[in-house]
Amino acid sequence: MTTEPNTDPLVIFTPSGQRGHFAKGTSILDAARQLGVDLDSVCGGRGICSKCQVTPSFGDFPKHGLTVSEEALSEWNAVEERYRHKRGLIHGRRLGCQAKVEGDVIIDVPPESQVHKQVVRKAADSRVIEMDPATKLVVVEVEEPDMHAPTGDFERLKDALREQWQIERVEADLNILTRLQPTLRKGKWQVSLAMHICHAGGPSRILDIWPGVAEQGLYGLAIDLGSTTIAAHLCDLSDGAVMASSGAMNPQIRFGEDLMSRVSYAMMNPGGDQEMTKAVREALNGLIADLIKETDIPPERLYEAVIVCNPVMHHLLMGIDPVELGQAPFALATSDSLSLQASDLDLLAMAPRARVYALPCIAGHVGADAAAVALAESPQSSSDLALMVDVGTNAEILLGDRDGVLACSSPTGPAFEGAQISSGQRAAPGAIERIEIDPVTKEPRFRIIGVNMWSDEAGFETAAAATGISGICGSGIIEAVAEMRIAGLLDPTGLIGSAEATGTSRCIPDGRTHSYVIWDGSADGGPVITVTQGDIRAIQLAKSALYAGARLLMDQRGVDKVDRVVLAGAFGAHISPKHAMVLGMIPDVPLDKVQSAGNAAGTGARIALCNLGARAEIERVVREITKVETAVEPKFQDHFVAANAIPHASDPFPELSQVVTLPDVNYNTGGGDSAEGGRRRRRRKA
Amino acid sequence: MTTEPNTDPLVIFTPSGQRGHFAKGTSILDAARQLGVDLDSVCGGRGICSKCQVTPSFGDFPKHGLTVSEEALSEWNAVEERYRHKRGLIHGRRLGCQAKVEGDVIIDVPPESQVHKQVVRKAADSRVIEMDPATKLVVVEVEEPDMHAPTGDFERLKDALREQWQIERVEADLNILTRLQPTLRKGKWQVSLAMHICHAGGPSRILDIWPGVAEQGLYGLAIDLGSTTIAAHLCDLSDGAVMASSGAMNPQIRFGEDLMSRVSYAMMNPGGDQEMTKAVREALNGLIADLIKETDIPPERLYEAVIVCNPVMHHLLMGIDPVELGQAPFALATSDSLSLQASDLDLLAMAPRARVYALPCIAGHVGADAAAVALAESPQSSSDLALMVDVGTNAEILLGDRDGVLACSSPTGPAFEGAQISSGQRAAPGAIERIEIDPVTKEPRFRIIGVNMWSDEAGFETAAAATGISGICGSGIIEAVAEMRIAGLLDPTGLIGSAEATGTSRCIPDGRTHSYVIWDGSADGGPVITVTQGDIRAIQLAKSALYAGARLLMDQRGVDKVDRVVLAGAFGAHISPKHAMVLGMIPDVPLDKVQSAGNAAGTGARIALCNLGARAEIERVVREITKVETAVEPKFQDHFVAANAIPHASDPFPELSQVVTLPDVNYNTGGGDSAEGGRRRRRRKA
Repeated sequence: MTTEPNTDPLVIFTPSGQRGHFAKGTSILDAARQLGVDLDSVCGGRGICSKCQVTPSFGDFPKHGLTVSEEALSEWNAVEERYRHKRGLIHGRRLGCQAKVEGDVIIDVPPESQVHKQVVRKAADSRVIEMDPATKLVVVEVEEPDMHAPTGDFERLKDALREQWQIERVEADLNILTRLQPTLRKGKWQVSLAMHICHAGGPSRILDIWPGVAEQGLYGLAIDLGSTTIAAHLCDLSDGAVMASSGAMNPQIRFGEDLMSRVSYAMMNPGGDQEMTKAVREALNGLIADLIKETDIPPERLYEAVIVCNPVMHHLLMGIDPVELGQAPFALATSDSLSLQASDLDLLAMAPRARVYALPCIAGHVGADAAAVALAESPQSSSDLALMVDVGTNAEILLGDRDGVLACSSPTGPAFEGAQISSGQRAAPGAIERIEIDPVTKEPRFRIIGVNMWSDEAGFETAAAATGISGICGSGIIEAVAEMRIAGLLDPTGLIGSAEATGTSRCIPDGRTHSYVIWDGSADGGPVITVTQGDIRAIQLAKSALYAGARLLMDQRGVDKVDRVVLAGAFGAHISPKHAMVLGMIPDVPLDKVQSAGNAAGTGARIALCNLGARAEIERVVREITKVETAVEPKFQDHFVAANAIPHASDPFPELSQVVTLPDVNYNTGGGDSAEGGRRRRRRKA
Repeated sequence: MTTEPNTDPLVIFTPSGQRGHFAKGTSILDAARQLGVDLDSVCGGRGICSKCQVTPSFGDFPKHGLTVSEEALSEWNAVEERYRHKRGLIHGRRLGCQAKVEGDVIIDVPPESQVHKQVVRKAADSRVIEMDPATKLVVVEVEEPDMHAPTGDFERLKDALREQWQIERVEADLNILTRLQPTLRKGKWQVSLAMHICHAGGPSRILDIWPGVAEQGLYGLAIDLGSTTIAAHLCDLSDGAVMASSGAMNPQIRFGEDLMSRVSYAMMNPGGDQEMTKAVREALNGLIADLIKETDIPPERLYEAVIVCNPVMHHLLMGIDPVELGQAPFALATSDSLSLQASDLDLLAMAPRARVYALPCIAGHVGADAAAVALAESPQSSSDLALMVDVGTNAEILLGDRDGVLACSSPTGPAFEGAQISSGQRAAPGAIERIEIDPVTKEPRFRIIGVNMWSDEAGFETAAAATGISGICGSGIIEAVAEMRIAGLLDPTGLIGSAEATGTSRCIPDGRTHSYVIWDGSADGGPVITVTQGDIRAIQLAKSALYAGARLLMDQRGVDKVDRVVLAGAFGAHISPKHAMVLGMIPDVPLDKVQSAGNAAGTGARIALCNLGARAEIERVVREITKVETAVEPKFQDHFVAANAIPHASDPFPELSQVVTLPDVNYNTGGGDSAEGGRRRRRRKA
């Protein structure tokens, strides 16, 4: 296709009106695809499926300024003649894959040749993925049996897949073989197959079979299995569209909030690992059931799931006791990608032969979720040095560019997800997600999820009445702590000042420490939402772990600064870069160099679901990543202690200081509390 | 090893006394293997398993006329030192795989290094098979995990298999992965694996895993699934020894005695194919249970089964409706070999991950059983032209030599197996298996299975009392009919003469025809055993089909005679060549050129069980065999009709006439019965 004045024939598609010039000999299907015209095809342009039928118009078309000659399209070729002879074709119709452009032409795409694909894309999922899914629908024409060359029907089907689709080494289980002969005969030797292609040289598998050209779509799941939350996307495997997304809390939380407490649970309780395996598999089945209900897509059309998760979740999902991940040398039972049957994981609300692909783990503490971030964000292709942080209960950190990528994980704990925070809650309507504190009056104003105005704006209370003001979510607590530091309510060591010291009655005594009151709903029977000294300590531990992990990778790389920071994770998109930097969560960079990648792990899962080559690519990248084990690096401890101060005890933040000036306050009253922040709690046994 | 006077060092093994000269540098293990000394090893001579420990003796040994110097064996190498350091070694012991011959030496094999393998070989199973089974025990040493190169334990196990056993592309299901980490640690990074190796480039699979060097053996099953009988052999996969054999009637007989009546049953009765599938799978489970009971080998040590059968049995076993095999073009659902899980076939009395290998089918009517005969008898390697006939309810016929092999099947019906015969029975104690009729007196004498004398010998009646004389088995009926023809009781058209015409009162009237009385046990309440005119007709139909199939292949090959005939099948070993030729079952060849191959299909199954290369070989041979479809060849009909006469209406039998002179009798009394023999019954719809 060329857009400048062109002597190549002009092709105009109706009813869309899309048009372009194409070299003679271009097929109508190729022209449609290059223009993005909605023209179906499921046989790979082999003149088999007839999904691409079009009606060319000939004669004068003054409206388009075009005269279409009878020679505007190529003559009927053998494939097209064969199709018409064998299956019939409405008069005036051509097969778009066979008819080729020879002159200016107008092509009508009849409604039945349009896909009308519903494109439901959530904001976080707007990435365009090149579609080449492992699981796809293929239509083949199979040779009829010949008594004198008596190969089996299955062998001739395999020949057809090799010749018509270049799919080698095909396997089918007995349940397919039992259906093969009647299906071939019902389809008059034309069948549609749900194929699962192996990217690693293994056999490709027939997952399902239908006579003729199947009408049904194939669907897949991209699942991001986090320590605290699980997210699943149901995708159309023909175009990658996200049909629905659903999320749930990881039910394993009842066995331990962070990963290491779950490993401990497995070590202390015989059969504990199996309890947790059962819980997470049930949760996945529940999520899938939700998606099925929401979309009305039946379970038997779900042919594949791609799962990303950290190593402990990976092992617990697979039914592997994670005990070795709790002690040095943190040996994974298996680190390569896994290709399984869905039934191996008790995922029963899927097609009988549905497959599961689990991305490879990078190391004992750096999982398939980090691999998925690498797949989504491609640090290995970055021209500048990028630090990528997937914020969750366990943070995955990648640092790299074209010269190499380093990876580690850091046990931040669930504070960033609103857990272990006195007024913490999930990001749901009613949760405070943004907050500002006036540096002079020390009065807060805030926004809650579900209400599109600030709390000091007229009408807020009415608008908030539906949900109430229920707590603080992860991004809210980060802003709250950072705003308290900017407003001088908090000193660099993380101590909250008293009402006397700070000059606001919102700082109220709370045992030997103080809390800051953001919202008092008690008059209406609602909660009193405060930030306590304990909340500050939890955030300090989390952000110190995150910063220390990043710093460790920078040491290994031999750099003091990075060019850009990418925040990923379920709530990565919602973190305010300024506040994250005031807190000292991330190294100092210009604020406009802090990017949000949304749920990069989930996006990586979707990419692997929709593109076969991406699986080979990430398996290669994972082998080349330099793994850093934070748990046994003495420097991690030093970095952790230094990072406890807000923003940092020793590292300068020159870029931040151009934007924000932090007050020099000190609320250490000699009670020894300030030393507390220097103590560290590790969640791993080294 | 050399046997003539030799300057190479002499190695004498005790306690066996086996001795031989070996070139310097030969390992003790290699020397033992070449001599057939019982010295164990399961690690492939890698100094890992220590099964091959030996005790060299040094000094003067006048008894052996030998002085053994301290330098008679090579010095300790790194592998041996490493083993001693890591696992310990009794003082004076060496590892046979590492210690090398440097001078004359005496080597004692301690009892624990001897395998003491029980070699149970049935007569029909005496063939020596080179052991390289698909399923075998391997011992590996796995690298310990390293935090700084954090690959999974499974990936390091795969590395070990690649490096130590050259096994590439290994897969393990989740049930193995869940056991991997504790097993590796319990075995101190040494584990034994039951490996299933794929010969076709597919992945190899871990079927089981144990810490250290496993003590248990691996066993497999070779199953010959016939239309009428099923035979199974339980084999030790380390040395191929047949530990037990068992047989049973195919319970599908109740749905139809021959294959085409079973296909009809499936066509006429919805769900009939599934009934038959269930019946045959249950029968296999019963046979396996018998073998387990007989050998005390637990089911979880049965890791593989190899199955050979004809196409209809193949499809019914796999759960595939055989309807297409009942009508032209007789399309197989699948013709290639199948590699399955035992659980796919509901074979539950085996190891959880046990595998099944089904040999390839040659054509719609020529099955994996014929492929197994080809594997056992190698027509493709024969220097003379061999006709191989596997006699059963369906006869598989191969004709060929190095220049090419042809194959067909012929629907003989179950008469040769004693079914459809008035006094027919299975080959069991009490059954008449051999018979002679005096040409002058027309009196018979016979032998029964279980009694080692003829019926006219003194003491026979006493000896036969235990079992009684119960009927005639397949080889007995062939001899009976042939002897009746030799004795002039039967004319060439197959008519039995009357008492008057034959001169013996043993020819009694039976409706409009006559029967010959072999044994009248009615005085003692036993059966009257006769050969009826109906029996003769059944045998004529069966032998005509067999001969016509052979003749058809000879036509295709362009020959009038073959160099030798191989009779195979469950009772092939028991057929008398002379009688088979009098009957005209097989083409005329010198009697000493009729060989018995025993149960060649069963032997083929055992070869495929014990030798991986044989699977690739037979898959290649099957592709190259020329398939001939008897059901649609007009010449088959002509051959069938001409072969109805005994021995034949037109083909001369010059070799036979040198041995036997057949009387020229004619019992056609004008009643038209002789024409009956010319009618043919086909069991297939063409």
